[in-house]
Amino acid sequence: MKLYTAPTGNGRKPLIFLHILDVPHEIHMFDWPTKEIKKNWYLELNPHGLVPTLVDGDVTLCESNAILQYLADKYDTDNKFSYPNNDPLYWQQMRWLFYQSTQFSDALSRLLFYKKFRSDDEWLVDKGFEQIGKVYQVLDLHLAQNKWFVGDKFTIADLAFAVGHFRRIEKTTGTKFEIENFEQQYPHVTQWYYDVLSIKGVKEGFELK
Amino acid sequence: MKLYTAPTGNGRKPLIFLHILDVPHEIHMFDWPTKEIKKNWYLELNPHGLVPTLVDGDVTLCESNAILQYLADKYDTDNKFSYPNNDPLYWQQMRWLFYQSTQFSDALSRLLFYKKFRSDDEWLVDKGFEQIGKVYQVLDLHLAQNKWFVGDKFTIADLAFAVGHFRRIEKTTGTKFEIENFEQQYPHVTQWYYDVLSIKGVKEGFELK
Repeated sequence: MKLYTAPTGNGRKPLIFLHILDVPHEIHMFDWPTKEIKKNWYLELNPHGLVPTLVDGDVTLCESNAILQYLADKYDTDNKFSYPNNDPLYWQQMRWLFYQSTQFSDALSRLLFYKKFRSDDEWLVDKGFEQIGKVYQVLDLHLAQNKWFVGDKFTIADLAFAVGHFRRIEKTTGTKFEIENFEQQYPHVTQWYYDVLSIKGVKEGFELK
Repeated sequence: MKLYTAPTGNGRKPLIFLHILDVPHEIHMFDWPTKEIKKNWYLELNPHGLVPTLVDGDVTLCESNAILQYLADKYDTDNKFSYPNNDPLYWQQMRWLFYQSTQFSDALSRLLFYKKFRSDDEWLVDKGFEQIGKVYQVLDLHLAQNKWFVGDKFTIADLAFAVGHFRRIEKTTGTKFEIENFEQQYPHVTQWYYDVLSIKGVKEGFELK
């Protein structure tokens, strides 16, 4: 099994999960940023030229959250970090994986787009904050009532959000794109994130490069 | 089983799929656009206030592509329109569902955002066209080699893309946000879309309001 990845908001998800699962695997770590992902050999694996891609025997898989679900299905066989397809919680796990990849990632990538190209356009910047703030409100409300995203344990849904959250911190801290008073505004997200970092292997996983 | 929805880019996905599956269900169709989805009764079902939401017995499910996968698992039991969890193609189905909800929907929603708020900002508008054009290139390349997105039949992955594609046409035709020479640029997407519309129930599904 080989993972093509980089220490980015999506690339870290399967990277950390494989580290936690502790199954034999090989990592192809791109020196980020790289033009390598737009070359033909990689586009044959991942036609949009994105990280990550997983190659496991006959299966070549794109999309970070699909890869998380695949790895859970194949290698988290005692369901330490996931719910199986025959458990009703499987659907909540999937729902949050989609919400993370759509509303959360879309909001974060727009905020970072404005940071890069339109940082003086106050109206756009405000829209960016409004959009990501709305998502964090939803998360905070959910985490006020639930220690973890799905059921009673840390799962791949928590991992996906934690990696995205870390990415936002990493890309915005010390800039005007940082969310002010985050801990006061979103106390339950803040507590949950501490809990995630206390899961064995997660903190180490964030250091992988 | 009750579906809360509206004739939008995401709302139509489970609406059409339920129509095709022909299983007993009830539709709560919002008069679109509506402030109703931001009211407390609906936010309890869907905390971000988005359509669609499916309520099926004890399961309340958000995220249109998660709902498609759920409906396939529960009600497409002879796998006419999907691959089951124990089939390797299940993962390609999931990969394309994620790609549709991330790269395709993100590109379309940005293009429509620029159309609404920044239509004179040529640089931003160009970026919007570039982003969605890149996605259509990926789709066209895939469909040049494959009649359908996954395996040898029309599946929920095709449905998700077809609904998004229809939404783009619906929202941009006759405006400067239309993609010029679409059929020449993306002949395989064009052919595939004809094929999708020929699937029993799909065309009718698009008329539901």
